[in-house]
Amino acid sequence: MSSAPRETYTIGVDYGTLSGRAVVVRVSDGAELGAGVFEYPHAVMDTTLTAGPAADAGHPIRLAPDWALQVPQDYVDVLKNAVPEALAQAGIDPADVIGIATDFTACTMVPTLADGTPLNELPEYADSPHAYVKLWKHHSAQPHADRINELAHERRESWITRYGGLISSEWEFAKGLQLLEEDAELYQRMDHWVEAADWIVWQLAGRYVRNACTAGYKGIRQDGAYPSGEFLAGLNPDFAAFADTKLAAEIGELGDAAGTLTPEAATWTGLPVGIAVAVGNVDAHVTAPASQAVEPGQMVAIMGTSTCHVMNHDHLAEVPGMCGVVDGGIVSGLFGYEAGQSGVGDIFAWYVANQVPASVTDAAREAGASVHQYLTDLAYQQPVGAHGLVALDWHSGNRSVLVDHELSGVVLGTTLTTRPEEVYRALLESTAFGTRVIVETFAAAGVPVTEFIVAGGLLKNAHLMQTYSDVLRLPISTIASEQGPALGSAIHAAVAAGAYPDIHAAATAMGKLDRSVYTPNETDAAAYDRLYAEYVLLHDHFGRGGNDVMRRLRALKREALGEATDAASDTEHDALEAVSA
Amino acid sequence: MSSAPRETYTIGVDYGTLSGRAVVVRVSDGAELGAGVFEYPHAVMDTTLTAGPAADAGHPIRLAPDWALQVPQDYVDVLKNAVPEALAQAGIDPADVIGIATDFTACTMVPTLADGTPLNELPEYADSPHAYVKLWKHHSAQPHADRINELAHERRESWITRYGGLISSEWEFAKGLQLLEEDAELYQRMDHWVEAADWIVWQLAGRYVRNACTAGYKGIRQDGAYPSGEFLAGLNPDFAAFADTKLAAEIGELGDAAGTLTPEAATWTGLPVGIAVAVGNVDAHVTAPASQAVEPGQMVAIMGTSTCHVMNHDHLAEVPGMCGVVDGGIVSGLFGYEAGQSGVGDIFAWYVANQVPASVTDAAREAGASVHQYLTDLAYQQPVGAHGLVALDWHSGNRSVLVDHELSGVVLGTTLTTRPEEVYRALLESTAFGTRVIVETFAAAGVPVTEFIVAGGLLKNAHLMQTYSDVLRLPISTIASEQGPALGSAIHAAVAAGAYPDIHAAATAMGKLDRSVYTPNETDAAAYDRLYAEYVLLHDHFGRGGNDVMRRLRALKREALGEATDAASDTEHDALEAVSA
Repeated sequence: MSSAPRETYTIGVDYGTLSGRAVVVRVSDGAELGAGVFEYPHAVMDTTLTAGPAADAGHPIRLAPDWALQVPQDYVDVLKNAVPEALAQAGIDPADVIGIATDFTACTMVPTLADGTPLNELPEYADSPHAYVKLWKHHSAQPHADRINELAHERRESWITRYGGLISSEWEFAKGLQLLEEDAELYQRMDHWVEAADWIVWQLAGRYVRNACTAGYKGIRQDGAYPSGEFLAGLNPDFAAFADTKLAAEIGELGDAAGTLTPEAATWTGLPVGIAVAVGNVDAHVTAPASQAVEPGQMVAIMGTSTCHVMNHDHLAEVPGMCGVVDGGIVSGLFGYEAGQSGVGDIFAWYVANQVPASVTDAAREAGASVHQYLTDLAYQQPVGAHGLVALDWHSGNRSVLVDHELSGVVLGTTLTTRPEEVYRALLESTAFGTRVIVETFAAAGVPVTEFIVAGGLLKNAHLMQTYSDVLRLPISTIASEQGPALGSAIHAAVAAGAYPDIHAAATAMGKLDRSVYTPNETDAAAYDRLYAEYVLLHDHFGRGGNDVMRRLRALKREALGEATDAASDTEHDALEAVSA
Repeated sequence: MSSAPRETYTIGVDYGTLSGRAVVVRVSDGAELGAGVFEYPHAVMDTTLTAGPAADAGHPIRLAPDWALQVPQDYVDVLKNAVPEALAQAGIDPADVIGIATDFTACTMVPTLADGTPLNELPEYADSPHAYVKLWKHHSAQPHADRINELAHERRESWITRYGGLISSEWEFAKGLQLLEEDAELYQRMDHWVEAADWIVWQLAGRYVRNACTAGYKGIRQDGAYPSGEFLAGLNPDFAAFADTKLAAEIGELGDAAGTLTPEAATWTGLPVGIAVAVGNVDAHVTAPASQAVEPGQMVAIMGTSTCHVMNHDHLAEVPGMCGVVDGGIVSGLFGYEAGQSGVGDIFAWYVANQVPASVTDAAREAGASVHQYLTDLAYQQPVGAHGLVALDWHSGNRSVLVDHELSGVVLGTTLTTRPEEVYRALLESTAFGTRVIVETFAAAGVPVTEFIVAGGLLKNAHLMQTYSDVLRLPISTIASEQGPALGSAIHAAVAAGAYPDIHAAATAMGKLDRSVYTPNETDAAAYDRLYAEYVLLHDHFGRGGNDVMRRLRALKREALGEATDAASDTEHDALEAVSA
């Protein structure tokens, strides 16, 4: 008597800003069978250091503005708690699990010794803020990023155009330079400056393998090389060897195995010793295979508080304002492009919290709807353009094409009869227009977008999705999993374990996409074209030097408040929170 | 035994949009001894005709959009009710009253027979909307106004520059042309097209005297003449004789007596037969003497929902965008200038009703403050410029210098940390910047403003007043009466009765002003200069053809809503509501 082949499973673990989420996925079809979540005990430390002896003694060390730290042990605790919980919920035999993979926020950096021990775990550094993890949204390295960008443009470094002309304060070099210049002793003691995405893999597999994705997007690794020692010395003579020493590591391609599960990690997780551990990855990027978007021209937008766009193409192009292009950055063998809108859902949330009257919030409560849904439903009772408004979605600056975090939001066209839901709709639309600018910029650069796929929390707003379809004149497909990143990691684990020959095959079998859920309405698209034309005029006037009023207003604000700097809120990664929420 | 001379009194009656207010004033010093208010029974008819047989039968006639009608009898009822009430409250002997004067909203027009009978009082017209009073804010004559303006500019009519290049849809000619073209029979039957300001005087004195103020500002009477028959025929051949016939009347100078109180009017009011009845006047204009602003260069701003500016000067100048300049238009012997901001307090009110969250309105209630006061107090805890915002105060279009009611509001500079009170302050400031544009335009035209005097409801906001002082770099004086227009009328009554030789003398004795209550703070003024520079850049870009986005958004809105017209809300007169509120 023959039996069907025994089903196998992989584990995907998605590390977000406040928690880690583990999902058990069936390798044959991608079915998600169980999940577990564990919140980081120390969450985000952004005002005081809540770990270390000083904190234990009740005198926590204060952090400067725009700092954001985490504790590495919290990540390990996710393995100890969320994975067993997911296994229990799935009700499977752990012996049938063949691999595990992780994705992480990025760029989130851990300073370690040669053996991977985080510096904050050394007693002598337990009260040193710089010994802790610098979370992606640690923004106090802006002055260092500014210097990197200035020098790169001055020296016409070839790599700067691969990042739309701007290295972010969030990335490895800016944060590393800050560490050197603010705590030189600790910098010297540090053997490795490790992406958390790779550090957690190190804990699982006992080997340090640096993933090609973050090495490229966040580590300025292009064509196999980092920025030169000459360039780095121009920033600071003591920084000259930074890339050769602190970043040195074996590079691992996405979908490859970094190693196998150690006995210790097996104990933490309840998984079998020796199963495949995949090379580390990033939350946004693993969402591409989770939504079957591994072909050239398929753009995945992870729409949450902000939007992160990832797309593969078969050739290299320089796209103005893109966050980065990396060979094999999303799928090995293709060029992975990343772009972003620094404010999307957070603009809508700001509006609801600050600009919506009780008459609306009360009515929403009575109707049993969220304020967002209530405003949306009201606003879309009108035809396109009936509000007479156009807005600029720059409340968090612009990281899309203009790459200027000093830009700010605008609402234009208000009258005494303008209603709250009309402004709300104008803000929704403004983010669609912002997306169209990106899509058109990619097309103009020779890497056209042929399908637009949405993941993330905002895909639940059907009116918003229809607006995107009309504005972009593209069909909108939506991911059919609520755990996009974790599913994407599980897909990588399946490939690392050899269950599929490559990510393409695994994504086809395990990814989940609802195709062309929204298609353009020609009448509405024509009306939106007219609003978009207005958006572009304002975009170029305020964004390309026609009137630098926004920059001057920020300067006046800083002077008025006596501040030296006004931190960028270049938040390309908080979008991911919504994905796994 | 000799006794002190017996005190005498005058009555000022201020006709607002919804009610009339009578005040008893002591002639010797302007003391306000008693007041009475009467609300018009028919209020404003703007959706249906609530008077006439059809309404009585329960089938009221529907009015088209942007209509606003009133019933003349309601004005007489004010005389019958509010005047006796004011006399009773004052506790004086009516025999000691020596004169009465009125001021009215303008341009508010009554179609009458030769004897002054309003057409709506003829049974055959009682169901004809055009037979009723067209209130100032009746805006459906915009297409007619557009034609008047086009033709005037085409023919280079000399008078058009006296009105800043724009004849309003609210004024006598636009409303008259509408009447002709929409109800020719009624137009033919009409003997006089009478300002309500003069019609009420006609009821008091039994004589039709057309006041020089409205004849000039609203009736295009300049240098003793109206627009030519040739011009009028160019609008419509049947309109050629409009000025010569329908507007023909004896002109009365402000402060003169139009006649004496008739026995019938004495019965209505309880006042002595034969006392002086002053020539009619306008609410904004009588406020100038009430605030002792009768010297060249003293600008009075009546700040309410909108702001109306009036100022005397000793010579004629052409000021871009002014509402009008009229010889003797405010005080006989000087050139009276009028300007306006079409949205001020109504923008703040719109914001509070539509853009302020429950967190703020709840906190205001707990603090026992109005939302306006609460927002103001919060916003002014910050230094100038700390909000990083600049706004354009064009929610009702711009009637100041640009004369374009298709313009609309803007808020620029918002970020995710922008708070409700910060936007509110930016809107307050935007109206101050709008005022500075007017003041600078007057100065550039050779009629400088030397003192800025505020009347109207908004003078209660001390932070707003200080902002105006800082932005204008002028001392701000404030009227010391809460019934500015009624007091101003009472001053005119005193002159008409011969108690003072002229308005100047009467204003000195009876007007009430707190001088230089606010003076500029140099530090803040310097910071406001920077914000004002940004305002001017945006003002000129969006207002002078740099980007006509606002006009296009209005067009798209109209198309979307399938509307033929989007009425102007050129509301220079609702400011007055706040004055007497």
